Amino acid sequence: MIGLRLQLRIGTDTRIGPGKIILLETVARTGSISAAAREMEMTYRRAWELIDHMNKAFGQPLIHGQTGKAGGASLTEFGLKVIETYRRIELDAKAVAAPHLESLGAIVPTVSVDLSQSATEDDD
Amino acid sequence: MIGLRLQLRIGTDTRIGPGKIILLETVARTGSISAAAREMEMTYRRAWELIDHMNKAFGQPLIHGQTGKAGGASLTEFGLKVIETYRRIELDAKAVAAPHLESLGAIVPTVSVDLSQSATEDDD
Repeated sequence: MIGLRLQLRIGTDTRIGPGKIILLETVARTGSISAAAREMEMTYRRAWELIDHMNKAFGQPLIHGQTGKAGGASLTEFGLKVIETYRRIELDAKAVAAPHLESLGAIVPTVSVDLSQSATEDDD
Repeated sequence: MIGLRLQLRIGTDTRIGPGKIILLETVARTGSISAAAREMEMTYRRAWELIDHMNKAFGQPLIHGQTGKAGGASLTEFGLKVIETYRRIELDAKAVAAPHLESLGAIVPTVSVDLSQSATEDDD
């Protein structure tokens, strides 16, 4: 299976790939960092570190509200914009990549092309 | 600086990003895995492992010829096709990403958009 994976690079040290985007989406849906962490099978500490790293890389918060385990959390306008930007680029990039990947896949008969939206990826 | 980074995913375990593509390009240019490894400041063993991993993921060789330190190495037609596919997707994807990244960058005034071709990246 051949597919395409995208990361936003922020500065030289930060890469935001499908894992971090799904984390943001899950916080938005559940309204809670701890619920999102549980759903994604990571520790609260790890989820918070990933979010904090993104906040620092962009120089502004992607999530506001209580960051303690008990409090609710919601995305800032900017956080929502980051998700939207990533997903739009992913959609457009996969569309332009499709013929190139099909052409490569035609040489490797055992390999099919998969351009579905990223949904289960690891943590970057 | 906001940029875009692309990886081809082969199966579930293999990601081919700018680092591996530059390795293939450097082998093609120098005609030697050991010269490419030296230029990229990695060991011969590491370069060979990366190439071997790609060969296995695709189920066909990207590089043929002597694999010992003394022998020459050149890319197969398929190896050249992998490079071409990656670079074409990168070019097209960065073109479609540009307006989205500019829009995000406009919110983060300290962050500029960089969509140059990947040239100095680490090893994936």
